[in-house]
Amino acid sequence: MNNIETIRHSLSHIMAMAVKNLYPNTKFGIGPAIDNGFYYDFDLPRQSFEGAKAGLSIDDLPKIEKEMQAIIKSNIDFIKKEIFQDEAEKLFANQPYKLELVKELTSTGKTGVTIYTSGDFTDLCAGPHIENTKEINPLSFKLTKVAGAYWKGDEKNKMLTRIYGLAFATETELTDYLKILEEAEKRDHRKLGRELDLFLIDPTVGMGLAMWQPKGAMLWRIMEDFWYQEHLKNGYELVRTPHIGSRKLWETSGHWGFYNESMYPPLEVSQTLKEAQEGKKSEIKEEYLLKPMNCPFHVSIYNSKPRSYRDLPIRWAECGTVYRYEKSGELSGLTRVRGFTQDDAHIICAKTQVKDELKRVADFIIFILNTFGFKEFNVYLSLRDPNNKEKYAGNDEGWEFTQKVLEEVAKEQGLNYKKEEGEAAFYGPKLDYKIKDCLGREWQCSTLQFDFNLPERFDMTFINQKGEKERPFVLHRALFGSFERFIGVLIEHYAGSFPVWLSPTQAIVLPIGESHQTYGQEVLKTLKQNNIRAQINLNNDTIGKKIRESEMQKIPYILVVGDKEIKANSVAVRSRNEDLGVMTTEKFIDTIKQKVETKK
Amino acid sequence: MNNIETIRHSLSHIMAMAVKNLYPNTKFGIGPAIDNGFYYDFDLPRQSFEGAKAGLSIDDLPKIEKEMQAIIKSNIDFIKKEIFQDEAEKLFANQPYKLELVKELTSTGKTGVTIYTSGDFTDLCAGPHIENTKEINPLSFKLTKVAGAYWKGDEKNKMLTRIYGLAFATETELTDYLKILEEAEKRDHRKLGRELDLFLIDPTVGMGLAMWQPKGAMLWRIMEDFWYQEHLKNGYELVRTPHIGSRKLWETSGHWGFYNESMYPPLEVSQTLKEAQEGKKSEIKEEYLLKPMNCPFHVSIYNSKPRSYRDLPIRWAECGTVYRYEKSGELSGLTRVRGFTQDDAHIICAKTQVKDELKRVADFIIFILNTFGFKEFNVYLSLRDPNNKEKYAGNDEGWEFTQKVLEEVAKEQGLNYKKEEGEAAFYGPKLDYKIKDCLGREWQCSTLQFDFNLPERFDMTFINQKGEKERPFVLHRALFGSFERFIGVLIEHYAGSFPVWLSPTQAIVLPIGESHQTYGQEVLKTLKQNNIRAQINLNNDTIGKKIRESEMQKIPYILVVGDKEIKANSVAVRSRNEDLGVMTTEKFIDTIKQKVETKK
Repeated sequence: MNNIETIRHSLSHIMAMAVKNLYPNTKFGIGPAIDNGFYYDFDLPRQSFEGAKAGLSIDDLPKIEKEMQAIIKSNIDFIKKEIFQDEAEKLFANQPYKLELVKELTSTGKTGVTIYTSGDFTDLCAGPHIENTKEINPLSFKLTKVAGAYWKGDEKNKMLTRIYGLAFATETELTDYLKILEEAEKRDHRKLGRELDLFLIDPTVGMGLAMWQPKGAMLWRIMEDFWYQEHLKNGYELVRTPHIGSRKLWETSGHWGFYNESMYPPLEVSQTLKEAQEGKKSEIKEEYLLKPMNCPFHVSIYNSKPRSYRDLPIRWAECGTVYRYEKSGELSGLTRVRGFTQDDAHIICAKTQVKDELKRVADFIIFILNTFGFKEFNVYLSLRDPNNKEKYAGNDEGWEFTQKVLEEVAKEQGLNYKKEEGEAAFYGPKLDYKIKDCLGREWQCSTLQFDFNLPERFDMTFINQKGEKERPFVLHRALFGSFERFIGVLIEHYAGSFPVWLSPTQAIVLPIGESHQTYGQEVLKTLKQNNIRAQINLNNDTIGKKIRESEMQKIPYILVVGDKEIKANSVAVRSRNEDLGVMTTEKFIDTIKQKVETKK
Repeated sequence: MNNIETIRHSLSHIMAMAVKNLYPNTKFGIGPAIDNGFYYDFDLPRQSFEGAKAGLSIDDLPKIEKEMQAIIKSNIDFIKKEIFQDEAEKLFANQPYKLELVKELTSTGKTGVTIYTSGDFTDLCAGPHIENTKEINPLSFKLTKVAGAYWKGDEKNKMLTRIYGLAFATETELTDYLKILEEAEKRDHRKLGRELDLFLIDPTVGMGLAMWQPKGAMLWRIMEDFWYQEHLKNGYELVRTPHIGSRKLWETSGHWGFYNESMYPPLEVSQTLKEAQEGKKSEIKEEYLLKPMNCPFHVSIYNSKPRSYRDLPIRWAECGTVYRYEKSGELSGLTRVRGFTQDDAHIICAKTQVKDELKRVADFIIFILNTFGFKEFNVYLSLRDPNNKEKYAGNDEGWEFTQKVLEEVAKEQGLNYKKEEGEAAFYGPKLDYKIKDCLGREWQCSTLQFDFNLPERFDMTFINQKGEKERPFVLHRALFGSFERFIGVLIEHYAGSFPVWLSPTQAIVLPIGESHQTYGQEVLKTLKQNNIRAQINLNNDTIGKKIRESEMQKIPYILVVGDKEIKANSVAVRSRNEDLGVMTTEKFIDTIKQKVETKK
């Protein structure tokens, strides 16, 4: 039985064979296996007849696939051979990219290279490969994409044509994966965000900076309200801090030292504090930085007055918008942005309170994730590298204690966690929660991290019961992680059909004709008085068109009103999946209220 | 009857006379009348005996006041005289500052100067003055402050000693003003903000950047929740926008052109949009600016898709935190800051909707101000300068129309408004509301402004009923103005004793002894279940001390529980002004709920 990697790699050779057959003068780059498939880079011959396309397009892929299937069915052997450098150079004399690779491979003293031959195609390749093409199911792969790729990834080199393929062990696996891809495309939050008027990112305003349209801002507000209420219930207090802080603050925290690559550059203004207080002008600059994290502000509030053991545990939460300069190529919709809002909190407590606080946070995380419809998640416990202890902040005792208690809590909570040594941040160990969406994809969201760095750098203390100064333990935690990312995941998880309690618009009233508008308005008013987020469509379109539009907008309840409904003082209700029939407005209000109360 | 300015100015001379008597070798700077009083700048002789103080301190003021009163009672005349330059130079030969002024005054061709003599003191002065010191009530002034002041305000010159005095027409007016000053000092929001743990400004974090402690953040949240609910009721939708935008955006809006003095400098990052999209590195910079206003973002959302007359009016609200670089010397607590949160909204509508929208906003402003306890305000209608029309954005017709309709609405609302020609911003006319606090001080808060600039610069349009493109009207408005400033004013208006509905802590439970703590906890739990923001004090202090502390924290209700209360299943309630006696917890909950519901 072949490893799937081997099959994928062999398929890339088979694709090269097919391309060689179809475009005889092609020069070959490289062709590795990748996640879920393979690719190969080709330098295709320029077509000489008039009207010929430059390179390949997606329309050419079926032809290549067909050729590959023919090759597979021909039961061709893959034959491995070691040859000397001069032999290899002769063999690839007409293949400049291969020749370049041969020279590189042998430049360090190696005398020979490995080649694989299948049919009349020979490739410079270390393998391993299948023995014969008959080991491959010709229906278990599919070519998907054509893209440009610089030779060796260097923009100074020639751009080659890269063809991507998917490949799995069985046809069923391929079909399943294609379905997920198709589903993922339908659920793409960037597409749905536009179609449902939730948010937009406009490069002329700023890349990676989301602007929230009314419906998106409403969804946000609903989440934030819920978040806030639950935090109050859980003994948190709110704080609010600015979006910029002095460079001095970020130097003290250490961020400007070890994190400045991800920070926006400083804002320089032209007065120093002291000189400004004295009314003097100055040539020395005052510098501010956009905050990439909220922590130094929370610590500054903590340090603004002496604290006693009686004040602990302190639990301070803030939905703080932070800015991190991500490379533009890494930006993606709401899941990778430059400005995002952490649902942050810092817990500052004594050692004896640590375990209890951890348990509370762990419970809180699961409650929140479940409420938003995520029932599955993977948990990662990141520990320090035991062979490299000196690279971490804090002391041995603190690490031993917090790592132990994190694992205890993970166990007691019955979390199916994975331990990862060496994966801790330098400032402390952590528990990360990755949620699984309905397509089984993992998304990092909740996190729970100890910090040994900030308490030291800011010399945080409290007066303990013996009247002595003691260093508190500091825990960072976020439940959503970031509002932007979490909403992005929510959109994809629900394909935009949010549960009723989260839907920006919960119900829409559709009067069939003009004579039903007055009654429709009355229904709307009653709904609004009952705190239902309702709309009405008064356009003179057909009822069929209005229903279709409302369905496109994924509104949970559509209330059609016409003569019959007016007579019966009722509404005809359609939910997303079914026709709920005619009911009184009061009955409908009860139905929807129950959904909202149970967070459905 | 003398003008109060004349009396104040003459008092500055009388102070100079007193200083001359007490410190014979003093050199004199200048001594004008100012708002509510006067000052004089002195270059005092160095005292030659050991242990002598340098200059004066506040402890010396009573002695000077006494000398001034003696002078006033001596009925001394003020005699005016015009003298030639050479005569003046001889007269002030021993007064270098006066001599400098004489030279300046006569440098432009004037041949003489005016002097005033009172007793043996002669000052270079244009007057006017009283005729005789008997016209002054010796009890209607008071010296208040000693400060350093550079001669001519230039730090390169010598620092002189400035003595400030207050002066009014009558002793009663002085006493009233001193009471207001004393009251204002007690109510100072910077002092109360610290004492009540509401907010703090830490220069090492950033000048003019407030950080909100839990109680302040709670007050903010209560206000924001109320604001949000009322905006929904009033047909607004929320939007959310980032805190930075590309320089291009601010160039299009014009802010970078005409407003950059108040903006933080650009953040420069090293990729341009186009190059970044192509994955190229670049030496050209991408620049971002912290937002000083929210408008360009709201306009960008508007312009993100075609709009129809059916979409109007659009009412988009956002509590958006903006950053403006104010000179550090101008910063003051929460009322003059560098980062503040506007309770902003933009109304985008057709011409026929303008008046109705204005009325709605005007009503909304009064509702909000009244709810927060402000019953008095002055309204200013700022119009363009009719003789200088070319300096304004927009066209004549737009200005005529909006100015007319603003005034109509002001009249119809019965607003006692003041018209100010030439006070409009270049982009449009406006109505400003200044609230009067309990000390009669005016604070700018609500505002309602037309904007002819942004619709043009961003080419905002909608498709009207005829199918043609039409330019909408744009209105900016804020009700609080800024959360920071409004909270600052609220603190001073209520001297920190907020109405029950706004109080971060509404009630505190004080168990008399340890044996009453369990019952106290039960009461606390019941209160919390009823959404009352309650605390408990479990310290082992005397009940007297605990009550005093709670009063210091200005908590509206103090609930004492001891044996008697446990037996009767009740609480002993003190409100701020009175002992409400013993009542059941339920009865207390009813009382407080009623207060909250009626916003008391």
